[in-house]
Amino acid sequence: MNDEPGAAAETAALFGKEGIMTEEELRELGRKARAASYKLAGLSEEQKNAVLCHAADALEVHTGEILAANAEDLKNAAANGMLAGLQDRLRLTEDRIRGMAQAVRDVAALPDPTGRVLETIERPNGLKICKVSVPIGVIGIIYEARPNVTSDAWSLCFKSSNAVILKGGSDAIHSNLAVTNVLRGAIAEAGADPDVLALISATDHETTDRFMRLNGYIDVLIPRGSGRLIQAVIRNASVPVIETGAGNCHIYLDETADPAKAVPIVLNAKTQRIGVCNACESLVVHRSVLGSVLVPVVQKLSEKNVQVYADPEALAVLRGAEEIPAALLHEASEADFGTEYLDYKISVKTVGSVEEAIAHINHYSTKHSESIITETKENAEKFLNGIDSACVYWNASTRFTDGGCFGFGAEIGISTAKLHARGPMGLRELTTYKYKIYGNGQIR
Amino acid sequence: MNDEPGAAAETAALFGKEGIMTEEELRELGRKARAASYKLAGLSEEQKNAVLCHAADALEVHTGEILAANAEDLKNAAANGMLAGLQDRLRLTEDRIRGMAQAVRDVAALPDPTGRVLETIERPNGLKICKVSVPIGVIGIIYEARPNVTSDAWSLCFKSSNAVILKGGSDAIHSNLAVTNVLRGAIAEAGADPDVLALISATDHETTDRFMRLNGYIDVLIPRGSGRLIQAVIRNASVPVIETGAGNCHIYLDETADPAKAVPIVLNAKTQRIGVCNACESLVVHRSVLGSVLVPVVQKLSEKNVQVYADPEALAVLRGAEEIPAALLHEASEADFGTEYLDYKISVKTVGSVEEAIAHINHYSTKHSESIITETKENAEKFLNGIDSACVYWNASTRFTDGGCFGFGAEIGISTAKLHARGPMGLRELTTYKYKIYGNGQIR
Repeated sequence: MNDEPGAAAETAALFGKEGIMTEEELRELGRKARAASYKLAGLSEEQKNAVLCHAADALEVHTGEILAANAEDLKNAAANGMLAGLQDRLRLTEDRIRGMAQAVRDVAALPDPTGRVLETIERPNGLKICKVSVPIGVIGIIYEARPNVTSDAWSLCFKSSNAVILKGGSDAIHSNLAVTNVLRGAIAEAGADPDVLALISATDHETTDRFMRLNGYIDVLIPRGSGRLIQAVIRNASVPVIETGAGNCHIYLDETADPAKAVPIVLNAKTQRIGVCNACESLVVHRSVLGSVLVPVVQKLSEKNVQVYADPEALAVLRGAEEIPAALLHEASEADFGTEYLDYKISVKTVGSVEEAIAHINHYSTKHSESIITETKENAEKFLNGIDSACVYWNASTRFTDGGCFGFGAEIGISTAKLHARGPMGLRELTTYKYKIYGNGQIR
Repeated sequence: MNDEPGAAAETAALFGKEGIMTEEELRELGRKARAASYKLAGLSEEQKNAVLCHAADALEVHTGEILAANAEDLKNAAANGMLAGLQDRLRLTEDRIRGMAQAVRDVAALPDPTGRVLETIERPNGLKICKVSVPIGVIGIIYEARPNVTSDAWSLCFKSSNAVILKGGSDAIHSNLAVTNVLRGAIAEAGADPDVLALISATDHETTDRFMRLNGYIDVLIPRGSGRLIQAVIRNASVPVIETGAGNCHIYLDETADPAKAVPIVLNAKTQRIGVCNACESLVVHRSVLGSVLVPVVQKLSEKNVQVYADPEALAVLRGAEEIPAALLHEASEADFGTEYLDYKISVKTVGSVEEAIAHINHYSTKHSESIITETKENAEKFLNGIDSACVYWNASTRFTDGGCFGFGAEIGISTAKLHARGPMGLRELTTYKYKIYGNGQIR
C-alpha cells in the first residue's frame, strides 16, 4: 500500500506524521470520531447493514493489496525473529480474508442493539421516563499483531453505532493500514462517514500512552490480547477500561460427581483448545472421589500428554493408579494454582467440602468461568451462588463461555471486569443507555 | 472518641498506624472486606434489614459521642479557616443525626436489588443460561468532609450486599471515625461481619493514591464531591471509576417554546437550588423567540438577581427589554459556555435551529441533563435522540435527575460516565450480574 502515492497521502492525512502523534493530533482524531459517531447514530439499521456488506465485498475485492501489505509485515516479523505461533496469527491468506469478509456479513445479519426500550417508568407527577439503549460513542481498541481483529472490531462497533479508534500491534502495521484503508474507502463509497474508523499508525509507546489518557474523546478502551497487554492498559489508562481475557478457569469434582460427565467435560475443557481463555487450568477435587473420579479423569488426560501438577494428597493417589505415566505427574507449587497455563498442563487441589472448594477458587480464579460436576443440587446451588466469576457452570464445560455459544452471534471479548459487562461481550454490551423523559411543564 | 482507650485501640487495630497506611495494610483491609462481602452475599434480605435498622438506632443512641467527635473537627476547621459553607456541610446536629438514621431506615425499606433474574437463555444443546443480578463486591468511596455520606454510602452498599471501604475528607476524620465505629459496633451486635465497612483513617495523599490503585481488592471507586476531587480520582486511579457529579446542564428554548412552560421551568431549574449538579447553567435559544420567550424568562430570573452572560445577539434583545436591570447583563466569553456556575449565573447562546442547538450542547455539556422546551414533537424527538447526555427532557426541569425523583428511593450519585450506570445510581446500579449455566454433561 505504501508504494501507491494515493494511499500514502491518505495515510499521512489520516494518521499524522509517522512514528509519533502529538496530543493535539490524537484529540483531532477523537473529535472526528465523535462527530462521525453522532452521524452514525442517525443511520437506520438498513443503511448500516448496506455499509457492512459493501465493506465485506471490498475486503475480498482488495485481497491482493491486503496480502501485499501483509507480506511486508511477515518479512519484517521473520527478520525480527518473531515466534512461529505469533507469525501464524499475523499471517493473512485468501481464505482468511474471505473469513474476515464473512464475519463482517455475519455481524450485518445480527439484530441492531440500539434503540431498545429497556424500561418505562411513569411518575406520580406525570413524567414518563424511558430508558433506551444507545451507542457508547467512541470506542478505543488496543490489540496485538492480528490483522483480522481490525475488521472484526470495526464491524461490531459499526453495527452498534459506535465510532472506533484502533491501535493494533506495530508488527501488523502494514496489514492494518491496508485493511483500514479498504474499509474506510468502502464506508465512504456506501455513503457513510469514514471517520467512524481510525487506525493509529504511530508505533511508539508515548503515543499509545497518550491515547489511553484521552478522556472526553474516547469513552471506553477495550484491550484484546495477552495478560501483559491488558495489565499495561489497566495500569496506564485514565479512560475507562473493560478488562478482558485472562482465564484461570477451575472445574470442581464434587463428592457426587458422575465420572461419565466428569471425564468428557474435563477432557473437553482442558484439551479441545489449549490457548483460549475459557480452557480449564485447574481441578479442585473432593478427597472422597480422588480414586473414583480424579483417577479416570487424569487417565484420559494422560492420553493427550497433559502434565498434572497436584497437591501431595492427590499426587499420592494418582501415583498409585494404573495407566498414568509417572513422567506426567508433578507436585504442585503454590504458584501453580494461580497460573493460566494455556498449555497441556493442569493443577489439582484436594478439598474436603464444597465450601472449601469455593474459597479456594475465589482466591485463585480470574473471575472468568468455573464449573462444578455434581449430582447434588444443593452443592450445585452453593457453588453457583458462592463463586465470584462471570460464568458459573453446573455439569458443563467451561469452554461454552463464548459469544457464539451464548447465542450473541459474535463477541468483542470476554469481560472479567465487574462493571458494565461481564462474560461474553456481544453487540448489546457495546451499548449504554440514556433516559428520555417526557413532560408537560413539570417543575420540582 | 479518641479519649476513650477502647475506641482508640479499636481504631488502631482497624486502620493501622495513624497518618499513613502501607500497601500491605491496605491489601489486608481489602482482603477482610472481600471475605466479609462473600459472607454478606449469603444473608437474607430480612437479615440485612435487621442490621440496617439496628445500625440506624445505634446512630441515635450514640448521638453524644458522634457530636463530641464532630465538635473536634469543627474546632480544627475553624482554626484552619475553612469556608463557612464547608463548615456547614461538616457540622452535625441532633437533627442531622436523626436524619442520617432515618435515611438508613429508608434504605432498609427499599427492595433488595440482588438475585433478580435478568434474562434466561435456552440453547439448542440444552444448556440453560440464567443472567442474575449479584453484588459488585468491594466498593471504594472517596468523598469530602461530609460525615452524613459515611452512613448514607454504607447503607446503600450494605443493602446491595457490597462491602465498602470509605475514604472521607481529612477535615471530617473524627466525625467519620465516630460514625464508623458506631456502625461497625451495631453490625457486629446484629450478628453480621463488621468488616463490611472500613474507613481509611490515614490522611496523607500517598495512602489515597495507593488506595486508588488496589486492583483486585477493590472492584470500583465512586468519587463523590467537587469536580476537582472527581478529576483527581479519574487521573490517578487504576481501579475502575464511575464518574459522577459535574453538571453543565442546558435548556433549549425552541421556536415553538410555550412561555407558560418555559418561564417556570427555567426559574425552577436555575434557582430552586443553585449548588446542585442538575441545576441549569446555560440557555440555548432559537433566535425567533429571543423576544417572546427569552425576555420573559430573563425578566423572571432577574427577580432572583441571576446574572446573565449572553452572546451579542441575545444581549442586544435583552438590553432592549424592560424590567431587566442592566447590571445583570453581561457579554458571554467562550469560557462561560463551558462553566458549571453553581451560582445565580446563567449563560445564553443564540442558535438558528434545533440541529445547531444539539451541536452546541453536545460540545459544551458534561453529558448530565438537558431539556428542550417546544410544542413541536419532531424537534423534541430530534433533541431526545441527538443529545448525548444521561437524561434528556422534553418540557420539564432538569432538576428531576435524582434517584428520589426517578423512584429509585435513594442514590449514591449521578453518573456522567457511559459505562455500567448512567444518570441516577440507586441500589440496582450497585449490582453487576453473573451467568449461572445449568447443564447435564454438555461439552463443546
